[in-house]
Amino acid sequence: MKDQENAPVLLDIDDGVATVTLNRPQSINALSEDMLAALQSVWDQLAEDRAVKAVVLRSAGDHFCAGHNLKEMTARRTDADGGQAYFNALFATCSKMMMSIVNLPQPVIAEVKGIATAAGCQLVATCDLAVASDDARFATSGVNIGLFCSTPMVALSRNLSRKHAMELLLTGDFLPANRAAEMGLVNRVVAGTELQSTAQNLARAIAKKSAAAVKIGKRAFYEQAEMGLVDAYAFAGRTMAENMMTRDAEAGIGAFVTKQPLPEWEGE
Amino acid sequence: MKDQENAPVLLDIDDGVATVTLNRPQSINALSEDMLAALQSVWDQLAEDRAVKAVVLRSAGDHFCAGHNLKEMTARRTDADGGQAYFNALFATCSKMMMSIVNLPQPVIAEVKGIATAAGCQLVATCDLAVASDDARFATSGVNIGLFCSTPMVALSRNLSRKHAMELLLTGDFLPANRAAEMGLVNRVVAGTELQSTAQNLARAIAKKSAAAVKIGKRAFYEQAEMGLVDAYAFAGRTMAENMMTRDAEAGIGAFVTKQPLPEWEGE
Amino acid sequence: MKDQENAPVLLDIDDGVATVTLNRPQSINALSEDMLAALQSVWDQLAEDRAVKAVVLRSAGDHFCAGHNLKEMTARRTDADGGQAYFNALFATCSKMMMSIVNLPQPVIAEVKGIATAAGCQLVATCDLAVASDDARFATSGVNIGLFCSTPMVALSRNLSRKHAMELLLTGDFLPANRAAEMGLVNRVVAGTELQSTAQNLARAIAKKSAAAVKIGKRAFYEQAEMGLVDAYAFAGRTMAENMMTRDAEAGIGAFVTKQPLPEWEGE
Repeated sequence: MKDQENAPVLLDIDDGVATVTLNRPQSINALSEDMLAALQSVWDQLAEDRAVKAVVLRSAGDHFCAGHNLKEMTARRTDADGGQAYFNALFATCSKMMMSIVNLPQPVIAEVKGIATAAGCQLVATCDLAVASDDARFATSGVNIGLFCSTPMVALSRNLSRKHAMELLLTGDFLPANRAAEMGLVNRVVAGTELQSTAQNLARAIAKKSAAAVKIGKRAFYEQAEMGLVDAYAFAGRTMAENMMTRDAEAGIGAFVTKQPLPEWEGE
Repeated sequence: MKDQENAPVLLDIDDGVATVTLNRPQSINALSEDMLAALQSVWDQLAEDRAVKAVVLRSAGDHFCAGHNLKEMTARRTDADGGQAYFNALFATCSKMMMSIVNLPQPVIAEVKGIATAAGCQLVATCDLAVASDDARFATSGVNIGLFCSTPMVALSRNLSRKHAMELLLTGDFLPANRAAEMGLVNRVVAGTELQSTAQNLARAIAKKSAAAVKIGKRAFYEQAEMGLVDAYAFAGRTMAENMMTRDAEAGIGAFVTKQPLPEWEGE
Repeated sequence: MKDQENAPVLLDIDDGVATVTLNRPQSINALSEDMLAALQSVWDQLAEDRAVKAVVLRSAGDHFCAGHNLKEMTARRTDADGGQAYFNALFATCSKMMMSIVNLPQPVIAEVKGIATAAGCQLVATCDLAVASDDARFATSGVNIGLFCSTPMVALSRNLSRKHAMELLLTGDFLPANRAAEMGLVNRVVAGTELQSTAQNLARAIAKKSAAAVKIGKRAFYEQAEMGLVDAYAFAGRTMAENMMTRDAEAGIGAFVTKQPLPEWEGE
């Protein structure tokens, strides 16, 4: 663990739950090149780890994440092309990292305290679930410094109603945790002292389900979301039938109808 | 009426309102083969009944609907293919029944008490409107027994914001009626003693509108929902112009601009 | 200004904010042919006016807008075709006017008091943001007179959750301001005495941002909203990189990372 202590991202796996900690509090966990690479590496690793059933994404320090590393980006303005190729690659790298959360077989729960701004707010919107402490604040503040939060907008506008998303994006104002919950950006708001246990308990509750069923369901959720109703039902019906053929469904439903205790899940 | 008393679904038509009652309280109105066939038959009948202007979908007993009949499904695991063909056909049959609610010319109002779980929760999400008693509880609980609620997800994720839908689907936890109203799954929550009259009054209010206008509007709602903005406006503009050419619009608007009482609607 | 005083729409531009006033209070600012043409003309003018950074759409009199001019429409029933060609053209003209708000480079804030019904409610839904006085009421009331609000539905159903939109459309009932805020149709509700200053302050706050960034962001918002997630991220990533290459982003981010005051924006 010693080597890992200084890593940009810490990974701890316990009892089916992976806890991923953004570990650059001195830079408010900005999504630097190092941080993006470390996160991508963690998602790639977890995608293959069948012992992990649920994931918590949290932060060291007082804040969740302040978005991109603007110093690192500004330094590339001296590139021959003014940084354009670098910026294109950077945003593609970041979007790939965000899509890896969506594509991860396991649900990811954001555990948010302090500020979550710009691509940090996008991280929260991208996770499948989110819990926040009552001091958490959310903003897409790029508009204040001439850079509209267009990539955060992709995740944000798929979480919030249109006028709520527009208000955040156009004003750059901070949204307090309770309002974020009302708008649907986070699932639950708790006292700061309860934050970590709330996220862990939610992850553990999900980790106790059949990983096969959860994996099938999470993937199907995002796939059907982009279909028309007729196609979505055809797809979801096939998905249900496939799910029925898994050993977990057979054992779980069998136990339910015979009023026996639930089985140990075999996993995917 | 004697024969009908033991039917899986009761149908009562009064003053333009069809009241459809799930009538297997002893099995929490599970969507067995018999129940699915009976519901399909009712929707097919109502689709052709021009005297019916609005529909209430309710339940006998203390609960709305507990979803699929898991005993019936489990019995088919002894089929030569382990039940796979049966399960595929079953989910297709159920999706067809749900789509028949969407495609019905008349609006359908769910009247929900007690539990509405899995495909029972999907029924609520699929109806155009929903009222619930304050004791109603909603869950997509398949994840607890190894079968993710992937078909309920199709309707649910078109009613709720993404994180709310995910929370229901991943935890399987019960959602109380008031929270369901906040999330948009139901329109109104009332005391149990007021439930039936609330649903009936809402249905009667809609039944007093022009059935031609309501039919045009309901169909257009679901069609335009799947279009981009430019196509949706082109489609909706043509729809409005066609609606203008109906006798009801001519009579209704004519009465309005001349400050006369509203006409008797001629229907579609 | 004398000539303008009797115009259907007043336009006042001050300090980067254009205030557009619906000026036919005697007809509750109905969207007559004259009103539609005047609004279209204003949007066309503002789209080219780089001095305008944000827009407020408000009304003279006690109410916002009552939708189409039904008298003017009814008069065309004596056309050889019963008005059909006229109605088709009218709804196309209205939809073009609504789309011009969506396509306008500057954000548009609806400032709503009194009633906003039918296409008047659509105007509110179409604006990027909306503030309302606590006496404001919203309805899609066409269903009451035989003409379902199918074009308003396009904007409404992209603002509200499905059951909320359906309730408005099927009942024609008035929605009070506070409930409209809960549903996401308006961003903020304030006392009538605070309405104008709230809208103006919101517009001024946005007008102080980089117009280049806001223009890029508003356009990207509506474009990505119609894409699947993978395409949306590819598009938004390119958008961010292009935004990075603007002079405003270079100056704004540069000031931020060096802790200098924000620059004067150069505009698009």
